[in-house]
Amino acid sequence: MKLATIRVDGGHAAVRVDADVAVETGARDVRELLGDPGWRSRAESASGRTHDLSTVDYAPVVPDPGKIFCVGLNYRNHILEMGRELPRYPTLFAKFSDALIGARDDIALPAVSDAIDWEAELAVVIGTAVRDADREQATAAIAGYSVLNDVTARDYQYRTKEWLQGKTFEATTPLGPVLVTPDELPSDLELTCEVDGEPVQKASTSDLVFDPPELVSYISRIITLRPGDVIATGTPGGVGHARTPPRYLADGSVLTTRITGIGELVNTARAKR
Amino acid sequence: MKLATIRVDGGHAAVRVDADVAVETGARDVRELLGDPGWRSRAESASGRTHDLSTVDYAPVVPDPGKIFCVGLNYRNHILEMGRELPRYPTLFAKFSDALIGARDDIALPAVSDAIDWEAELAVVIGTAVRDADREQATAAIAGYSVLNDVTARDYQYRTKEWLQGKTFEATTPLGPVLVTPDELPSDLELTCEVDGEPVQKASTSDLVFDPPELVSYISRIITLRPGDVIATGTPGGVGHARTPPRYLADGSVLTTRITGIGELVNTARAKR
Repeated sequence: MKLATIRVDGGHAAVRVDADVAVETGARDVRELLGDPGWRSRAESASGRTHDLSTVDYAPVVPDPGKIFCVGLNYRNHILEMGRELPRYPTLFAKFSDALIGARDDIALPAVSDAIDWEAELAVVIGTAVRDADREQATAAIAGYSVLNDVTARDYQYRTKEWLQGKTFEATTPLGPVLVTPDELPSDLELTCEVDGEPVQKASTSDLVFDPPELVSYISRIITLRPGDVIATGTPGGVGHARTPPRYLADGSVLTTRITGIGELVNTARAKR
Repeated sequence: MKLATIRVDGGHAAVRVDADVAVETGARDVRELLGDPGWRSRAESASGRTHDLSTVDYAPVVPDPGKIFCVGLNYRNHILEMGRELPRYPTLFAKFSDALIGARDDIALPAVSDAIDWEAELAVVIGTAVRDADREQATAAIAGYSVLNDVTARDYQYRTKEWLQGKTFEATTPLGPVLVTPDELPSDLELTCEVDGEPVQKASTSDLVFDPPELVSYISRIITLRPGDVIATGTPGGVGHARTPPRYLADGSVLTTRITGIGELVNTARAKR
């Protein structure tokens, strides 16, 4: 099953996404839907207002997560090619929900930064509150997977040792278009990123050092994860900052982030006029 | 004027705190109250149900902020005594709201860490949405000030370069007891911290490198700050980790965090049994 949050009538609606149509579930957004313990059967049996898929306006799949955890340094090949050792613990940092945009929205290039870079990632969305979860409980707590691009202001990221300020610029992080439940996905997903049609990142999620259940379990020993919380699982090699010379997004750049079996984000970077 | 969020009838209520009583404002909590553009006059004129101050049960002054920004390395004397240069930019990291507790609540010592330390801090609470604010707009956007202790798991903080995982353990961060509006406070506040009655931290907020309006302005160039958002402005010297040998909170330790003119947090550390 695929779920999404779409924009309707000046607000949001959580929908089930079928082959050609989106069907309203009655919940305001996917976070509210997942907060209903019976979300799965509610979404499966939903028969609300329908919308032609070709014209829906996607909001971030969870517009206002209570927590967005991001993971750094999590693709094996990329870490090894950088000459580093595999990490013992996941590197975790945060993002706030005002950074999120929908799957077709423009990326707001910040006026204060000229170093806006891409980071294609698999996103995990939590469906059940979990605390101190073992691997099995963590797996069961995952509602599904989505696509995220952890668009980053490299200059702000490295202004201090803590990355947060480069990671949470307003309206820069696409999340969507849909959440796909785990039963519809293979364990090995192909993640790709293109800038203006040119491939820049390509990886398999089987290369993750800390896979989704391990991340959910690890974080749940720190704090409760709740329905709608998001974990961005990290990006593989191929970011613009690592090029010589570095390459960043410019006004008009089209960023395409794709995961097989989930879908794609297509976002145009736009400078404020 | 002083505001607080208290626990009543299995839920929360935003109250105006007078000399001896707390008066309900009709809002569910201080975040919801501040989301009302007329919050100031609404709170000033509130005449709802009253509660004896000596028996109120304080929730975190904002139980569920949309954002909690924390600042590292922000007290001048402490930075200089460490032999470092004053920073050019604020070091920013995050905390999630499940970490917050009320002014008299127990601190939940995590089962997985034996290195729980204190960090007394002045907290800023936002009262008006701001983006790209200059100093004057930033000053006007501050609803008031509160007391926070950024209780930290030092081992988790330093597991990786990013501090988040040591900073956001469930039910560890007291915030309160009240928010005091800026008109009732001098610009120079005395911040103190005691462990089991022994003074461990003492500083004046005039020693901050980046003061509250500067922090609000800086962050607002990254992302919109909204009513109820919290900025923890950093801690002075005197933390337990910097001692030889290090000193951490133990089961039963009483942590008292006080700012003159605002109030005090008194929290007992408790191991899970």
